[in-house]
Amino acid sequence: MSDNPRITLYTAPTPNGFKVAVFLEELKNTYGFNYDVRPIDVARGEQKEPWFIAINPNGRIPAIVDRGRNDFVVFETAAILIYLQQHYDTENKYGWDPKDHPDEYSEMLQWMFFAHGGVGPMQGQLNHFRNAASEVVPYALNRYLNEVKRLYGVLDLRLGQDRDYLAGTGRGMYSIADMNVLPWLRIREHSGLNNLDEWPNVKRWCENTLTRVAWEVAGNVGRAGGTASLYRVG
Amino acid sequence: MSDNPRITLYTAPTPNGFKVAVFLEELKNTYGFNYDVRPIDVARGEQKEPWFIAINPNGRIPAIVDRGRNDFVVFETAAILIYLQQHYDTENKYGWDPKDHPDEYSEMLQWMFFAHGGVGPMQGQLNHFRNAASEVVPYALNRYLNEVKRLYGVLDLRLGQDRDYLAGTGRGMYSIADMNVLPWLRIREHSGLNNLDEWPNVKRWCENTLTRVAWEVAGNVGRAGGTASLYRVG
Repeated sequence: MSDNPRITLYTAPTPNGFKVAVFLEELKNTYGFNYDVRPIDVARGEQKEPWFIAINPNGRIPAIVDRGRNDFVVFETAAILIYLQQHYDTENKYGWDPKDHPDEYSEMLQWMFFAHGGVGPMQGQLNHFRNAASEVVPYALNRYLNEVKRLYGVLDLRLGQDRDYLAGTGRGMYSIADMNVLPWLRIREHSGLNNLDEWPNVKRWCENTLTRVAWEVAGNVGRAGGTASLYRVG
Repeated sequence: MSDNPRITLYTAPTPNGFKVAVFLEELKNTYGFNYDVRPIDVARGEQKEPWFIAINPNGRIPAIVDRGRNDFVVFETAAILIYLQQHYDTENKYGWDPKDHPDEYSEMLQWMFFAHGGVGPMQGQLNHFRNAASEVVPYALNRYLNEVKRLYGVLDLRLGQDRDYLAGTGRGMYSIADMNVLPWLRIREHSGLNNLDEWPNVKRWCENTLTRVAWEVAGNVGRAGGTASLYRVG
């Protein structure tokens, strides 16, 4: 693959930004894939500026522009992962082809939507009420903590079925389904969950994955310009 | 296609259940597709019973079982729509083939994830604090009302770009991307939004779509056994 970066990643150090950085790093390590990064200063609301709204009408990071495919724009984290997998994971090492392996592909999508509609927004609400809300709201704190714990329990149930990863036959295969949710587990301390002892299968999954080289390097992506991480990582 | 129902839909009269019923009705009208329905009594927690957890570990409706493909199970609303489109919308009238039209396919996924991570969970929180919470929490009511309005505004921005539908070239094509979010707009009165005057493009989109035959029929799916609708429809 050419040395010219095809993909520009617009991002910031949040769990969603981190997911795409992890996958780009995995693609880089596997295929020599190249990308560049435009850090977005979310603290000063750069993601709400007109030039960025033209990229993502939802005004949120991450987003990508594919310069090799007519500047095609993709927003929504999970849609970005699927796009990159389809076009640039040419050997399907991190996902499945929808035509050749429709069942595994569907399984991957099911767990991606589970994270995208469950773990992400609910842990996001928990973080808001713990760390950002202008008043203490015990009802909401309790509601979202319970829901996040329930959702971790669903992941634990899945991984407890003799599995190492969420999707794929047998013990499963490390894929974008895992990359799409693990960054939320990675910042669990920020959400008030000091350990994963209640969910031993989730704990094992984290230990096996978060130590990969791509995960360590991805932690620095999007911090150019001295942007500090917005989250404590535990 | 055979007269024997291939798909069993486990559902209840909620926006997510409704989405799948709409698409099954569209497939029925277009292809003579057949399905049967197993209503789930969510009021008495049937979706948390072990037999249903074996189908969907997340314990939520809807889910489908495809008897024609080795009882393959699909949960998560949007993943169900994508699965049905891939396997049973053989002429791609309600979506795009990932290989033949990768850009439209990605666009469809982007708007599906936008709804699945945004409109759905946020309007769901608004409904909880308006209609189910055991105490009045003004901070949360305000937070989720503002966020739902912002998200409707993002849809309005998209549809204001000379579009009738969310995904596809030109004015777009009616697809599962629309079916995946419109059921939330349909119950807006339940969420305290009495009209759509602030979002004229969203209003036009609703008027053009919610009157389709499939949408009217789908309103009765999953109500066997006398289950009343859980939502006011406006």
